[in-house]
Amino acid sequence: MRLLGTLNKLSRFLNRTHVQDLPKRSMACSRFEYVKSFEQDDSILPNVWIVIRIDGKKFHKFSKAHDFEKPNDENGTLNVMNAAATAVMQEFRDIVLAYGQSDEYSFVFRKETASFKRRSAKLLTYVTSLFSTSYVMQWSKWMNLPLAYAPCFDGRVVLYPSEQNLKDYLSWRQADVHVNNLYNTAFWKLVLEKGLTNQEAEAKLRGTFSADKNELLFQEFGINYNNLPAMYRKGTILLRKRVILGDKSRQAIVPLHEDLISSQFWKQHTEILGKYVPGTYDATKPLPRLVELQLSEKQVDEEAKEPQNLSGIS
Amino acid sequence: MRLLGTLNKLSRFLNRTHVQDLPKRSMACSRFEYVKSFEQDDSILPNVWIVIRIDGKKFHKFSKAHDFEKPNDENGTLNVMNAAATAVMQEFRDIVLAYGQSDEYSFVFRKETASFKRRSAKLLTYVTSLFSTSYVMQWSKWMNLPLAYAPCFDGRVVLYPSEQNLKDYLSWRQADVHVNNLYNTAFWKLVLEKGLTNQEAEAKLRGTFSADKNELLFQEFGINYNNLPAMYRKGTILLRKRVILGDKSRQAIVPLHEDLISSQFWKQHTEILGKYVPGTYDATKPLPRLVELQLSEKQVDEEAKEPQNLSGIS
Amino acid sequence: MRLLGTLNKLSRFLNRTHVQDLPKRSMACSRFEYVKSFEQDDSILPNVWIVIRIDGKKFHKFSKAHDFEKPNDENGTLNVMNAAATAVMQEFRDIVLAYGQSDEYSFVFRKETASFKRRSAKLLTYVTSLFSTSYVMQWSKWMNLPLAYAPCFDGRVVLYPSEQNLKDYLSWRQADVHVNNLYNTAFWKLVLEKGLTNQEAEAKLRGTFSADKNELLFQEFGINYNNLPAMYRKGTILLRKRVILGDKSRQAIVPLHEDLISSQFWKQHTEILGKYVPGTYDATKPLPRLVELQLSEKQVDEEAKEPQNLSGIS
Amino acid sequence: MRLLGTLNKLSRFLNRTHVQDLPKRSMACSRFEYVKSFEQDDSILPNVWIVIRIDGKKFHKFSKAHDFEKPNDENGTLNVMNAAATAVMQEFRDIVLAYGQSDEYSFVFRKETASFKRRSAKLLTYVTSLFSTSYVMQWSKWMNLPLAYAPCFDGRVVLYPSEQNLKDYLSWRQADVHVNNLYNTAFWKLVLEKGLTNQEAEAKLRGTFSADKNELLFQEFGINYNNLPAMYRKGTILLRKRVILGDKSRQAIVPLHEDLISSQFWKQHTEILGKYVPGTYDATKPLPRLVELQLSEKQVDEEAKEPQNLSGIS
Repeated sequence: MRLLGTLNKLSRFLNRTHVQDLPKRSMACSRFEYVKSFEQDDSILPNVWIVIRIDGKKFHKFSKAHDFEKPNDENGTLNVMNAAATAVMQEFRDIVLAYGQSDEYSFVFRKETASFKRRSAKLLTYVTSLFSTSYVMQWSKWMNLPLAYAPCFDGRVVLYPSEQNLKDYLSWRQADVHVNNLYNTAFWKLVLEKGLTNQEAEAKLRGTFSADKNELLFQEFGINYNNLPAMYRKGTILLRKRVILGDKSRQAIVPLHEDLISSQFWKQHTEILGKYVPGTYDATKPLPRLVELQLSEKQVDEEAKEPQNLSGIS
Repeated sequence: MRLLGTLNKLSRFLNRTHVQDLPKRSMACSRFEYVKSFEQDDSILPNVWIVIRIDGKKFHKFSKAHDFEKPNDENGTLNVMNAAATAVMQEFRDIVLAYGQSDEYSFVFRKETASFKRRSAKLLTYVTSLFSTSYVMQWSKWMNLPLAYAPCFDGRVVLYPSEQNLKDYLSWRQADVHVNNLYNTAFWKLVLEKGLTNQEAEAKLRGTFSADKNELLFQEFGINYNNLPAMYRKGTILLRKRVILGDKSRQAIVPLHEDLISSQFWKQHTEILGKYVPGTYDATKPLPRLVELQLSEKQVDEEAKEPQNLSGIS
Repeated sequence: MRLLGTLNKLSRFLNRTHVQDLPKRSMACSRFEYVKSFEQDDSILPNVWIVIRIDGKKFHKFSKAHDFEKPNDENGTLNVMNAAATAVMQEFRDIVLAYGQSDEYSFVFRKETASFKRRSAKLLTYVTSLFSTSYVMQWSKWMNLPLAYAPCFDGRVVLYPSEQNLKDYLSWRQADVHVNNLYNTAFWKLVLEKGLTNQEAEAKLRGTFSADKNELLFQEFGINYNNLPAMYRKGTILLRKRVILGDKSRQAIVPLHEDLISSQFWKQHTEILGKYVPGTYDATKPLPRLVELQLSEKQVDEEAKEPQNLSGIS
Repeated sequence: MRLLGTLNKLSRFLNRTHVQDLPKRSMACSRFEYVKSFEQDDSILPNVWIVIRIDGKKFHKFSKAHDFEKPNDENGTLNVMNAAATAVMQEFRDIVLAYGQSDEYSFVFRKETASFKRRSAKLLTYVTSLFSTSYVMQWSKWMNLPLAYAPCFDGRVVLYPSEQNLKDYLSWRQADVHVNNLYNTAFWKLVLEKGLTNQEAEAKLRGTFSADKNELLFQEFGINYNNLPAMYRKGTILLRKRVILGDKSRQAIVPLHEDLISSQFWKQHTEILGKYVPGTYDATKPLPRLVELQLSEKQVDEEAKEPQNLSGIS
């Protein structure tokens, strides 16, 4: 019945005329106004998970220009990405999960969201724009060198009707980071430590399986792949959690580097698919800097007051 | 077999699958990969003008936070916007015209563009993202105070089949700036110089025509509205022009503040609808700072080398 | 010529894979072929229920022209509709349920269907076209007078992500038939038996509740509404069932007039949402004529051999 | 200005809410009604030519079942098609041209049409449905044997922004009929008169050019291809014309078999792209049966009274 109520409310709000989309300013009632009618409705089907995936444009060149460490540059490619994604989640409270790896980030809106009347371009561009500006604004907090030029991201909207589809989408991205990171770790070890050329390293790895690459890392470089930082191997999951601080608790966006392919993950974080009541964050000490920054800036409370979307979070 | 041959040949040319859309990295061939098939084709109809309009999110609040001058803040609302839009036009060379006013900017892609295979979300998000990051990057070049927080823009795609539709779209936006700016000029004069409250100023202007407001400005404030800066009254048109500098010429994005509703504008700048060969910029002396910056940074030449899209500009 | 060249180039790059959409005949490799690239992909999101609802165009006029009985004309409005819908279900085997009432019919494709690659226009027009031609072909089997003119139906595609949404859609249509039929029964009794004008009958019924109309039918006409034929009160549900005939069983499309709003219906006919293995038809004796016709014509077996869609029915 | 007026009118009519799409009957205000919000807006971009192409489903099998003559069956494949298309043009008066060949028919709506608020599915299904039912209804007027089973057609919507695109679309279809008909004529002559098997005939024609096939027809069968009926070689163009009968004139849909690839065609029939005022039909004597039937049935006048769409035809 709860779903039904939400959907009924949504259907009352879903008003697809375009009048309201137009600039809030007074309208010039000119003979040119007919051009408004060329704007087309792009409301998203109700009751599906809305995923927005952002991807860096030409980040190969971008990482070269900023001399990122290989294969993972904790600050440039990952921490700035995480900080920008955190800013997006703070602003758009119907995002229940974000998942980032490499130069991409996926944002999952709860399937009942009525934010921006589910208009596809609005959701897509707000998320992409705020991610983009936040990336630039956050840069100096995590990096020592200045930005060489304005970075650029593309975004896309993908819809998933069922929970299983959504889980499989996220699993697909996490399986991707595993395969890529293992490969890249081996590749750059061969290039940077063994002095192979890129072509030689590629040739050596061609056709190998995961086990082979694990073995190579262990035998030739003494590296146990599973001991590498989880952020490199698993990517970063951002969730909205209640952070316990002494006898107070505060909401914040917290980073996790867990295996989301396992069912365990979904049992532990039931708020993602369920009632959207933030779970409790079992914080490591010290808190991750990403969380510290939020708490110190009191952004969390301020944002919470913004009547961001139609259906609040209890 | 004849049909089969034809189809095979065709299928080599037509590759709609989303393989190329996916991250350039090697693909995890996992059981989750089926989720890719949920991405939907959003290619834009060929042979129509593609307009992307960007609009500031809650710029009323944003301009308050940065204490913008009323009604027009030359630097904040307009010059940073123009600089960001210039960066977009430098990068996406199939944009033949951009038009900005207030906190919005429209970008017009030539109707034959094959940039990003005319995929709607790609075009929309690249333009929105680069505009957004450039806005932040350009800020300190034009403003003395730091950005209080990350700004955010939405974007939309609108398609216009005919030249007349396109001209009418741009005329609609320019008629809008006229109506709004005249009103706002009168409004803020009443509030800031006559000490009226917002409500009183609103009441005084309610139901007045343009002529009334012109008269009010002249009688009560000694202002001839037509002498106010053209940028306030007409907005900013960005075009790609050949700038003559002594005996050399260089391409640059140049700002114009002309009346584009008149047919005169289209006769003078035939490259917009025509062959896309940049016209010559009849530069005022000194050059606008926006153009100076481009020339001094030699961005123009560098950008020209980028194989940005499928069909170049001669 | 320049435009033509560009468009031809463009058509090579544009990847809408309409390969299969093109006429099966050999292709004229003319300079005009670029126009194919204007066809846009309309594949339906995977994993959602696809409902196609067909609705008679101006059937008020059509029923007048054929002097249909009021409020329900068993033959014209209902039996011919049912026969046409049966023909559609025989042809498109991924339709798991059809529901008809008045001059409308809804067809539900199982959510995994890959028929016609889920292309929206293909599914929509095949169903609408076959329903339309079957309506005309079936007419003389159920009606004594000839068709006065060619009837016409519109169709639409609606997508439902969850089982609950789908059930609610069907419940919406069945609640609609209840409300309408009760009203129409009372209305036409007042007009045809009490001699009220249409306006008087309307006035008398305005603002009444279901209970009032039930009471009116009982008090003034001695009619117990619940004893009226179920087909009038509940509409017609078509399911694919195994019909037991002595010691043989045959598949057929069978009409039910049950309450599908109740959970009982879905428990009894688990094949709709489940594995698509046809259930057994608990046939009344004699068999409905709609079923008799199918069995006598041996259509069932013949149709079963057609490799209609990509994924068979187990 | 005329275009502008039409577009302004259109933009006032274009009301994208879905309320009006729903059945005209009184709505059950049930808790299920939220499912209406799942219907998505499909209004077509203004100011583009709307082409709806209908294509017979499995007409290879259909023509076998009815023992059609090879390669062209004047009655079955062509005249019934033409009669059905004529019925569609009589009903939907914003169709300015229809073009048929083989088992396909294309209908061109004038680009300013506001019929059915330009909703894609409405236009598509009404045309497909009425074509389908008319095909069945017209059958017995042109054929001696009964229909073996209900035929089925698919339909698609394709949009063309410019006049050139539209002409090229029609030219593409007419080039297609030329290539196919020449091939098929030669093929069936070889099979039916020379006794070649299908495979032998195919082999003989493989790789030949038009000139070769013309030569083969002339040398081996004494046939001058250009003397074959124009309907076979050029397809059928249906236009709305004023037919002069003695001193009276009547509107009718008339069949032409002209070369529409030439500019001559467009100069002669300016009403197609222009003001939509029907031109005069230079009738052959006797009138084609298709026209005779219209005049005798007085359908023309009756149809003209129907307020079919928003903008009438003078």
